[in-house]
Amino acid sequence: MKQKLLLTAAFIFLFIPQTFSQNNDSLIIRKLYNEALANGKAYGWLDYLSNNIGGRLSGSLQAAQAVKWGEMILGSIKTDRVFKQQCMVPHWVRGAKEKAYIVKGDSKTEVPVCALGNSIATPKGGLTAEVVEVRSWDELPKLGSAALKGKIVFYNFEWDQTKINTFDAYGQAVEPRWAGAQRAAPYGAVGVVVRSAASVHDNNPHTGSMGYIDSIPKIPACAISTNAADQLSRDLKFKSGVPVKFSFTQNCEMLPDTVSFNVLAEIKGSEHPEEIITVGGHLDSWDTGHGAHDDGAGVVQSAEVLNLFKALGLQPKRTIRCVFFMNEENGGRGGKEYAEQAKKLNEKLIAAIETDAGGFVPRGFSFDGDSVKINKIRSWQKLFKPYNIYSWDGSGSGSDIGHLADQCPVLIGLSPDSQRYFEIHHTTADTFDKVNQRELELGAATMAALVYLISEYGL
Amino acid sequence: MKQKLLLTAAFIFLFIPQTFSQNNDSLIIRKLYNEALANGKAYGWLDYLSNNIGGRLSGSLQAAQAVKWGEMILGSIKTDRVFKQQCMVPHWVRGAKEKAYIVKGDSKTEVPVCALGNSIATPKGGLTAEVVEVRSWDELPKLGSAALKGKIVFYNFEWDQTKINTFDAYGQAVEPRWAGAQRAAPYGAVGVVVRSAASVHDNNPHTGSMGYIDSIPKIPACAISTNAADQLSRDLKFKSGVPVKFSFTQNCEMLPDTVSFNVLAEIKGSEHPEEIITVGGHLDSWDTGHGAHDDGAGVVQSAEVLNLFKALGLQPKRTIRCVFFMNEENGGRGGKEYAEQAKKLNEKLIAAIETDAGGFVPRGFSFDGDSVKINKIRSWQKLFKPYNIYSWDGSGSGSDIGHLADQCPVLIGLSPDSQRYFEIHHTTADTFDKVNQRELELGAATMAALVYLISEYGL
Repeated sequence: MKQKLLLTAAFIFLFIPQTFSQNNDSLIIRKLYNEALANGKAYGWLDYLSNNIGGRLSGSLQAAQAVKWGEMILGSIKTDRVFKQQCMVPHWVRGAKEKAYIVKGDSKTEVPVCALGNSIATPKGGLTAEVVEVRSWDELPKLGSAALKGKIVFYNFEWDQTKINTFDAYGQAVEPRWAGAQRAAPYGAVGVVVRSAASVHDNNPHTGSMGYIDSIPKIPACAISTNAADQLSRDLKFKSGVPVKFSFTQNCEMLPDTVSFNVLAEIKGSEHPEEIITVGGHLDSWDTGHGAHDDGAGVVQSAEVLNLFKALGLQPKRTIRCVFFMNEENGGRGGKEYAEQAKKLNEKLIAAIETDAGGFVPRGFSFDGDSVKINKIRSWQKLFKPYNIYSWDGSGSGSDIGHLADQCPVLIGLSPDSQRYFEIHHTTADTFDKVNQRELELGAATMAALVYLISEYGL
Repeated sequence: MKQKLLLTAAFIFLFIPQTFSQNNDSLIIRKLYNEALANGKAYGWLDYLSNNIGGRLSGSLQAAQAVKWGEMILGSIKTDRVFKQQCMVPHWVRGAKEKAYIVKGDSKTEVPVCALGNSIATPKGGLTAEVVEVRSWDELPKLGSAALKGKIVFYNFEWDQTKINTFDAYGQAVEPRWAGAQRAAPYGAVGVVVRSAASVHDNNPHTGSMGYIDSIPKIPACAISTNAADQLSRDLKFKSGVPVKFSFTQNCEMLPDTVSFNVLAEIKGSEHPEEIITVGGHLDSWDTGHGAHDDGAGVVQSAEVLNLFKALGLQPKRTIRCVFFMNEENGGRGGKEYAEQAKKLNEKLIAAIETDAGGFVPRGFSFDGDSVKINKIRSWQKLFKPYNIYSWDGSGSGSDIGHLADQCPVLIGLSPDSQRYFEIHHTTADTFDKVNQRELELGAATMAALVYLISEYGL
C-alpha cells in the first residue's frame, strides 16, 4: 500500500507536471495560431509597406520612409521599448531604366535586362561587344584572354529544376551574379550579362547584389530574363557568319554611404530579462518590385510575433526582441551593426530567428549552432505537428543573424515552402498580390510558437 | 569462424536485399520526381484544357470537348489501352447571367451572386422578398414559419479562419449550400441566398451543388460573395425602419440527362495484370471559371503518372489505370459508372488514389479502408521525406473513388497544401494562372511514387 502511495506520489510529481506543461504549451500555441489567423495584423501592415512605400533600397527615400513606418507599427504594438540603431549604408542608385539589345549585323532585338546591384554604369552611349557564352566556371580559364578580351561574357548557368528545395538550385545558379564580373575582368572582358537566377521561363530580369574586388578592374554587370537568355544562347549557337553582339546601357551609380537605421522593439522577460531572443527580417528591399515577399513578409511576421504576445496578454519569461534589419540586400550593414551593438553591451543573446525566404506557407525551421541546444528545440517538434510544421533537420539560418555566429549559440531560419519564391525574387513581380494572408500569418504564428517555447524554457 | 560465416550469410540474405530494394526504390522515386520536374507534361496539358476548353460542366459542349481532349492526351502517352465508359449525366445550364440587389425602400445596390448548381430559376422578372439572416442550423426551427413564410433565407454561416486545414472550415461553411433550400422551404421560404464558402473577403461568388428532395417544394438558391454577404448582414442589423429586401434573377434550368463519358488509360502489370491501381481526377468542372485547380490539375496529374512510367521505361508489376471521371461536380455519375463496370467485370481493384483538392504543393496522403494495408503504405513514408511529404495520418480520400468503398480495400487522397484553394474554388478565378508548374508536377510525382511502390509490392 505504501509502495502504491509512493508510486502515486512519484506519478504526480514526475508525470503530471510534464503532461500539464505540455498541455498548457499546446493550448498557448493553439491560441497564438488562432489569434494570427483570425485577427493577425501582418497582412494589413504588409499592404501598406508594399503598396504605399514600395521598393526601398538602402539609402533611398523609400528606405527612410520604411524606417519611420517601422517605428510607427512597432510603436502601435505597445511593447516595452521601441528604438533604432544607426548605421551607414551603401547608397547605390539604378538611374534611368536600362536598355539592352541582341545585335546581329543590322538587326537588333530589344531584350529585358536590369543592372545588378552595386554594378558600375556602362560608358555613356552604352557598351556593345561580341558575346561569349559561359555555362560553368570551368570554361572561363579554358577560354582565357584569347577568347574573352574585349568581349561581353554571357553567364548562362543552368537552373536545376530537379532540386526539391529551390534554394538549392538558387545557390548554384546565382554564383555568377555575385562573382561573374570579378572573374571575367582579369581576362580582359568588358562587361557581363548574367542569366537571371529564376525557376521560370519569363521576361522578368532578376536583380541582386554583385561584388567587385579592388585589385581587379570594374566592369558593368546586368541580369537578363530567362527567356531572353535562351534566345541569346540560341542566337550564339546558330552560326550565321554574322557575329552576335550584345549591347546594353545602364545608368547606375554608387553614391557615398548614407545614414540609415535598424528598427527594434522589445517585450522584456519577466524572469530572465537579460536573456534575449531575437526575431527579425530585413526592412530594405530591391528597388525593382515592392519587396513584398523579400522581405516585407519577414518584417511584418517578426512584428506579428510581438503583437501576438501582447494581444493574448502573454508575458514571456525571457526578453523577445524584434529587429527590422537595414541593408540586407546590398551590404549587410544593419546585421553587422546589430551584432556589434550587442557585443558592446555584452548582451546575452540566447537564440535568433530570421525570416527571409518569402511569406509562403511554413514547413519548418533550419538551424546553425550548438547541437545540444538545437536538439532541445527539436524535442518540441511534436507540438507543431497540428500546424503541419514537419521540417526540423535542415541547416542554415539567415544572412542578417549570420553576423551573430560567435555571440548567439543558436541561429534559426524559418523555412517556408520554396516552390514559388524564385519566380518573383528580386523582380518587378515581388508585389503584395503574390502574398497569401493565411500563409503569411501561419509563418508568423509558427515563429511565435517557437519564441514562446524558448522564452518559457530557455536553451 | 563458422558462426561468423553464418552470420555473414544471414546478413547477406536478410539485410542486403532489403537495403538494396530500398535503395533501388529511392533511386526510382528520385527519377520519377526528376522527370516530372524537368520534363513533365502536366502543366502544358492543363494550359490547353483551361485556356482552350475552359469551364466544362457535365452535358456542355466543353465537357464533350474535354472528353475528346482526354482521349487525345492519354493516347499520346502510348499506354497499353485507352478507352471510355459511357454514362448519363445531369445537364444543368446556368442561362443568362444572374442579377441581384439589396433593396431598401427606393434604393437598390447590385451585389455579385451566382445560381447554385442544380437550382431552379427564379420566376420571370426575378424574386424579391424580405430577407431573414440565419447563422446556424439551430436558428431555422426557432424562426419557424412565422418568421420565414414568404421570405428569402440568407444563410450566413461563418468561415472558421482558425482551422489549419481549410477543408475543415469548408466542411462546416458549405452545409447550407447543399441543404439550405430543402431545409428552408418547409417553413414557406421562397428562396435562399447562401454566403460563399470561401476563405477570403472578396467579390467573387462561389457556386457549387445544391440538392432538392422530391417531397419538398423547390425554391431557387444562389450564392453571394463574402463581401456582399457582410454588407447584407450589416444592412439587416442596421434597423432603419425600412425592411431590407433581397432581389435576384437567375435563369438556370435542368435539361434532360445527356450522354457523357469517363476517359481511361492503362499500363498493364507485368506480374499481376489482374491487380489494378486506380489513379484519377475529374474531367468536368463548374462553368464559372476554367476548372484549372478543380480539377484540371487532378486530371493532368493522373495522366502524368502514366506518362512518367512510360517516359522512364518503367514497367509496373501491377496494372495502373488512370481515370478521368465525368460529373463529379453535380451528380457523381462517372464515379458510380466506374464502380459498376468494375463490379460487373469482377475486377480486382487493390487501391485507388484521387487527386481533387487543387494542384498545390503536395504535403501527404489521407486514407480510407483496411488499416493493415494502410499501415503497409505508411511504412514507406521515409522514402518520401526528401520530397517533403510528411502527412500520412489523415482520413478521407475523394468523392469519385468513394463509390468503390466496398470494392477496393484502400482509398487514398492526395493532400496538397490547402491554404489557397478556397479563394478560387468554384469561381471565375479558378484559372490556369493560379497554378504553379512545380507545385503541380510535385503532386504528380508524389502520386507516381506511391503508385510505383504499390505496383511493386502489392497490398
